[in-house]
Amino acid sequence: MAVIHPVVLCGGSGTRLWPRSRKQKPKPFLPLVGEQTLFEATLGRCANDSRFADPVIVTGAAHLDHVREQTRAFPGAAVIVEPEAKNTAAAIGLAAARLPEDAIMLVCPSDHHIADPGAFREAACAAASLAEQDWLVTFGITPTAPETGYGYILGGEPIEGGFAVQKFVEKPDLATAQAFLANGNYSWNGGIFAFRAGAFLAELAEHRPQLAEAVREAVAKGRAEGACFHPDPVAFSRIEAESVDYAVMEATTRAAMVPAAMGWSDIGNWQALRDAREADEDGNRTRGDVELIDCRNVLAETDGPRISVIGLEDIAIVVDGDEVLVTSMAGAQKVGKLSGAVSQ
Amino acid sequence: MAVIHPVVLCGGSGTRLWPRSRKQKPKPFLPLVGEQTLFEATLGRCANDSRFADPVIVTGAAHLDHVREQTRAFPGAAVIVEPEAKNTAAAIGLAAARLPEDAIMLVCPSDHHIADPGAFREAACAAASLAEQDWLVTFGITPTAPETGYGYILGGEPIEGGFAVQKFVEKPDLATAQAFLANGNYSWNGGIFAFRAGAFLAELAEHRPQLAEAVREAVAKGRAEGACFHPDPVAFSRIEAESVDYAVMEATTRAAMVPAAMGWSDIGNWQALRDAREADEDGNRTRGDVELIDCRNVLAETDGPRISVIGLEDIAIVVDGDEVLVTSMAGAQKVGKLSGAVSQ
Repeated sequence: MAVIHPVVLCGGSGTRLWPRSRKQKPKPFLPLVGEQTLFEATLGRCANDSRFADPVIVTGAAHLDHVREQTRAFPGAAVIVEPEAKNTAAAIGLAAARLPEDAIMLVCPSDHHIADPGAFREAACAAASLAEQDWLVTFGITPTAPETGYGYILGGEPIEGGFAVQKFVEKPDLATAQAFLANGNYSWNGGIFAFRAGAFLAELAEHRPQLAEAVREAVAKGRAEGACFHPDPVAFSRIEAESVDYAVMEATTRAAMVPAAMGWSDIGNWQALRDAREADEDGNRTRGDVELIDCRNVLAETDGPRISVIGLEDIAIVVDGDEVLVTSMAGAQKVGKLSGAVSQ
Repeated sequence: MAVIHPVVLCGGSGTRLWPRSRKQKPKPFLPLVGEQTLFEATLGRCANDSRFADPVIVTGAAHLDHVREQTRAFPGAAVIVEPEAKNTAAAIGLAAARLPEDAIMLVCPSDHHIADPGAFREAACAAASLAEQDWLVTFGITPTAPETGYGYILGGEPIEGGFAVQKFVEKPDLATAQAFLANGNYSWNGGIFAFRAGAFLAELAEHRPQLAEAVREAVAKGRAEGACFHPDPVAFSRIEAESVDYAVMEATTRAAMVPAAMGWSDIGNWQALRDAREADEDGNRTRGDVELIDCRNVLAETDGPRISVIGLEDIAIVVDGDEVLVTSMAGAQKVGKLSGAVSQ
């Protein structure tokens, strides 16, 4: 089997985990679960394993310092510095254009948590095998709840190590999500992909010819500077920002899915983060100077002041610098609407 | 009618409203309801009214700076500085011994809130009339809920402007408190008293002769220093700390009660404080930089950092310096048990 090139997408504005995640230091660069940052853990899952090549990181200039600091343990990492954020189709296009045509890319968001890295690597190998046969492969996360915040994938014909994709479904309502969960053939679309670089670029050229051409030109006119590659900003600025799901995966006839049950979470809000962390016997998760009395399933973390909590259940309390967030778990999805999160 | 001498008792350790109320600056000296501190409001209720003389304040050395700062508007105030805290029987004894024998004392805790000062003054005048007849008078607060945190008074024979006390009842359980509320003849014991100074000292001498003698000697050997009077610490140290309720009111045959419906609250915990404050249309009370989304009956206050709250009901969030308290209203009674409150 060909070696796998991890392509780590590293951006994000960080409003849903505000105030811990901030514009200046968003979610990927924070040690939200365990002691590693999500970005470090993403790199680590593909490191020290002969099946994986050195990673390619696609990020923005604003995050470059964080990327440099957190890739010290990965001296072979290459970094593509996007002149501006243009969503995932462009970011993956840049990486594909910088890799050999026959390189097998494994596209990984840098802000997800995966509890079982072994299961991840197994799925990655299955996906790589299909990618070698010019399937455009997405990881189908085995759903564990009727989530309404994710896109779903309906698996079709079985193929070696996976399934052809029958269809992609946008975020469903609760009743639909419950039906998907009961059905058993639906998976969450976790945004992890495997492609042969040439196959991806060919599909991009077919379905989004202008985007593909702008990416090609931005790379052709770009400049390398040490481990960093800077695409041409003028060519790149012509790109219409689009997700890889919409621009390529939903357009191609060669979409495949490999099932992955690997303890995946997108850590999409404080509730998801609480659930990803290890709990004490009362279901509480604390970090920093915290005292709890009569509490259950509380997340409480502070970077300084002591937090004292009495008689509460299913709430998150986060103290970060000059901000104090207190939210019900149900309310966690509205964190991005707070003035503090919006105006940062 | 004789002029009324307000005697303001000013101490307290301030654990139940921690972290806002701290040992170094406890509850009476904080602007917890409105813009005045509870202490200032207590003085203000008896000021600028010819029926009231200048106040006598009984406090400890630890609080003297706060007392001085907050009595600037009351230049005629006298201050008795207790060498140590010896509970209310001794504190009131000191004030009684410093006043003329026929002075009518109105003993007021300095950490209560009274929403209707007019009703308070009316009850004070009724109590003073009874005190002139050598009744030992307590305010019977008209109960508005089956509170289990207060002592109760059962009114007996009607007397001019009030009732003889039939009996005092210690803090009841909930069922008993509900029965008291339904009965209609029970009042809360709010710790506000009116006495003729000589009558109080005579009762004290009868029921607690050693305490009365120690008070007498502490005053006789004490020294005046400007507006302050310092009782003799050696004599005072012999006193056994006892509440006026236990040492005098429950012992005397001359206890009377005047009913008082005046919006009284002892601001005994964060729930009581929330209820004493004015609410917005959703029942929320905020101070400082606070943003609420989908909240009801929330108390949120901060002396600095912004508080952002989503989807919560009936909780208190208090940020004070390096402490963050988050408690359910039901949990508010346990605030004093927190490490932060205990170890301050």
